[in-house]
Amino acid sequence: MNIDLKSHERLDDLILDGMKLIQRDDQFCFSVDTVLLAQFGTMCHGPILDLGTGTAAIPLILTARGATAVTAVELNPVMADIARRNVKLNNRGAAVQVIEADYRHMAAWAASGSFDMVYANPPYREKSRGATSEVQGIRRARHEETATLEDVMAAAQYALKYHGRFRMVHITERLTDILESMRTHGIEPKIIRLIYGHSHARAKIFLVEGIRGGNPGVDVLPPLIIHEADGRYSQEVLAMYGKDI
Amino acid sequence: MNIDLKSHERLDDLILDGMKLIQRDDQFCFSVDTVLLAQFGTMCHGPILDLGTGTAAIPLILTARGATAVTAVELNPVMADIARRNVKLNNRGAAVQVIEADYRHMAAWAASGSFDMVYANPPYREKSRGATSEVQGIRRARHEETATLEDVMAAAQYALKYHGRFRMVHITERLTDILESMRTHGIEPKIIRLIYGHSHARAKIFLVEGIRGGNPGVDVLPPLIIHEADGRYSQEVLAMYGKDI
Repeated sequence: MNIDLKSHERLDDLILDGMKLIQRDDQFCFSVDTVLLAQFGTMCHGPILDLGTGTAAIPLILTARGATAVTAVELNPVMADIARRNVKLNNRGAAVQVIEADYRHMAAWAASGSFDMVYANPPYREKSRGATSEVQGIRRARHEETATLEDVMAAAQYALKYHGRFRMVHITERLTDILESMRTHGIEPKIIRLIYGHSHARAKIFLVEGIRGGNPGVDVLPPLIIHEADGRYSQEVLAMYGKDI
Repeated sequence: MNIDLKSHERLDDLILDGMKLIQRDDQFCFSVDTVLLAQFGTMCHGPILDLGTGTAAIPLILTARGATAVTAVELNPVMADIARRNVKLNNRGAAVQVIEADYRHMAAWAASGSFDMVYANPPYREKSRGATSEVQGIRRARHEETATLEDVMAAAQYALKYHGRFRMVHITERLTDILESMRTHGIEPKIIRLIYGHSHARAKIFLVEGIRGGNPGVDVLPPLIIHEADGRYSQEVLAMYGKDI
């Protein structure tokens, strides 16, 4: 495979289906959080939207799970370019469409209620909080510089059809903000899964699924433990990377 | 020990400190949920309020943890009578005061902001939901017949001093309702612990601590697993009952 890499770019394994992923060493790179989100819940064949797709890691994993119509939106032109090249590189052009656009203004490029599912792996920290990075791209991916939680939820509310599903990974620190914001935007939290680094650790992140127009009532799934006592990845996490042991 | 038991009453072990507890076989009896709540978090020596105390199981466990000034309020006269006798039976009259009153009208018997901590092990189900019991006392303890979540939170808001702590056990099904209601009543959710029946089971209940006037930001503690794979209580639960193995 002959791949042209630009300055600061490197080629990583996405592991699933033998896929490869161009990433930049000076930008946000996909992490276990991204994989957990993309592997969360059942898959559907209808239109799916990924808000702030970055390198398109989530859409690519979703195609490995059977998704056939993913729209991946990215504001940063450098990242949108990488996302497009990653889709092409893995021959997923028929299943993933990358749109360089702002999801705060979705009416310009998508009809309301046109998606069955919406994914978001948004910046975790509010703009004013936490250590900030000097690198603009990383800062944008980690902090809410270009899109706040409110923007994410407003976009999901606009994009989802009635009873469509919203899925997000976020930090437990903001659990109250997120459940409240989902409900405010007509997306009722239905399934939550806490992610614990190991069985005696606090949960730093969680997965949530909400249903547009759903009835109240949360189901908390079994704990997802990342590492065994000996430090190795748990069976469940390895299985998500397509590794059976 | 010579204890007069009335019709339908039985004497159970509260286990901790060798305490005993009169309970009624036709009323709600304390469960592991009650013990988990009473053992949750650090203890304080200031005034503590237990909303809807039932048999006074929570106040008695709190005294075993060092509490010295617990007010236990109970609306049902039959249960308030049992609560008073349980306090006397265990010689905790100096530390626990039982008040037969309605916590929906707290101004009649307590000053605003007069408690350091408020506990609630309230009915889990809304009045219209779930299977109902024919027995009035059990129905009241399980369903929101005499006090809704809104009533619990309004009472806690009234009772707690600034930066006082609220602690509750409730079902995960109502997680969104509860976090939203706490915030609405100025009690910011700060600590959450999910209770899993075993390590591969969904969490049906959870513990929450909120701070009156606290800043947003949730800490999710390590998973609390009730049963080991072999079905026995976990070490952590046994320790809460004062049993070391």
